[in-house]
Amino acid sequence: MIAPLERLVDRLRALPGIGRKSAERITFYLMNAPQEEVARLAEAIGSLRASVRRCEECFNFATVERCDICADPKRDPAIICVVGHPWEILKIERTGEYHGRYHVLGGLVSPMDGVGTGDLTIDALLGRIHKEGIREVILALEPKLEGEITGMHLVSLLKPLGVKVSQIAQGIPVGRDLEFADEVTLGRALRGRVELG
Amino acid sequence: MIAPLERLVDRLRALPGIGRKSAERITFYLMNAPQEEVARLAEAIGSLRASVRRCEECFNFATVERCDICADPKRDPAIICVVGHPWEILKIERTGEYHGRYHVLGGLVSPMDGVGTGDLTIDALLGRIHKEGIREVILALEPKLEGEITGMHLVSLLKPLGVKVSQIAQGIPVGRDLEFADEVTLGRALRGRVELG
Repeated sequence: MIAPLERLVDRLRALPGIGRKSAERITFYLMNAPQEEVARLAEAIGSLRASVRRCEECFNFATVERCDICADPKRDPAIICVVGHPWEILKIERTGEYHGRYHVLGGLVSPMDGVGTGDLTIDALLGRIHKEGIREVILALEPKLEGEITGMHLVSLLKPLGVKVSQIAQGIPVGRDLEFADEVTLGRALRGRVELG
Repeated sequence: MIAPLERLVDRLRALPGIGRKSAERITFYLMNAPQEEVARLAEAIGSLRASVRRCEECFNFATVERCDICADPKRDPAIICVVGHPWEILKIERTGEYHGRYHVLGGLVSPMDGVGTGDLTIDALLGRIHKEGIREVILALEPKLEGEITGMHLVSLLKPLGVKVSQIAQGIPVGRDLEFADEVTLGRALRGRVELG
């Protein structure tokens, strides 16, 4: 394949979920698409970072100082849900089950990747507890080692402030066969069992 | 989701094989990736069309007047394989079975889409027959109505020039169960049977 096409295929393959075949398909599609559409895509990618900022309150993606959620007077200001990354907010919002605000840590503590507590927005979170009169902090961190280390660290800092700290339930995924659940998940589902009736 | 992100998700969804979920994943990845990588991707897309031209001989993608294949003295100059689009050349090249040259029609005759014979590079193909001393023209057009109409038209123009015209074999795909072959394909595989031993 000629160099400019090969170059784009390589760049596209760096994207998540795009293999060589998909990258080629997209490249050829772009060679055939209206020039205007191609230019619009290049522009949307090129201007992405400059057009998106972080909310000064919670560090969610925003276009102005405060994100849509922090600026929404209908959201409960006394509950904060802590996530690692802004896109996890989108997932939680789609459940329609949560009506408080968020706080984006900007990652998880990861000794392997050299991410320490000082690299996360933990100080800003602590600052919000008193300033915003927070009643409950819900941890919605990834259920893996990094999420657990980060969670334990947050609990040790938040409990002394007298705020309720909870964690989203770990258990078997809804609609999946039990036999596909791994042992750790199943073990936690058992420990976290809920009384019925 | 905020507007600049939503805009990119929409643009990405227009690409082949990219659904809403993949588009979001790529968008968030780009928000998190090194700015340099994002800029390089935008540049590779934006400069794509300007950096790719068509071969003056065969209309394949090229960076200079003649594509790599037309410029290759090791390719048999007396055989032309006719395809609809340049990316079909890549597929054929990967078989390692073909050592002649190509001719890209730039599409297929399609009354539905308003593509007529005059929209394709048929005149240029006819011009090449004498000029390049072509012995055989192999039609490798998509095995659907448009490909058949285009093929029949080409045969009617090429035969009077005394050139051999062939078509790539239609039959059952290698390595697939026979029961999954559709009736038309199976019918053609029977008619096109090859004597063994």
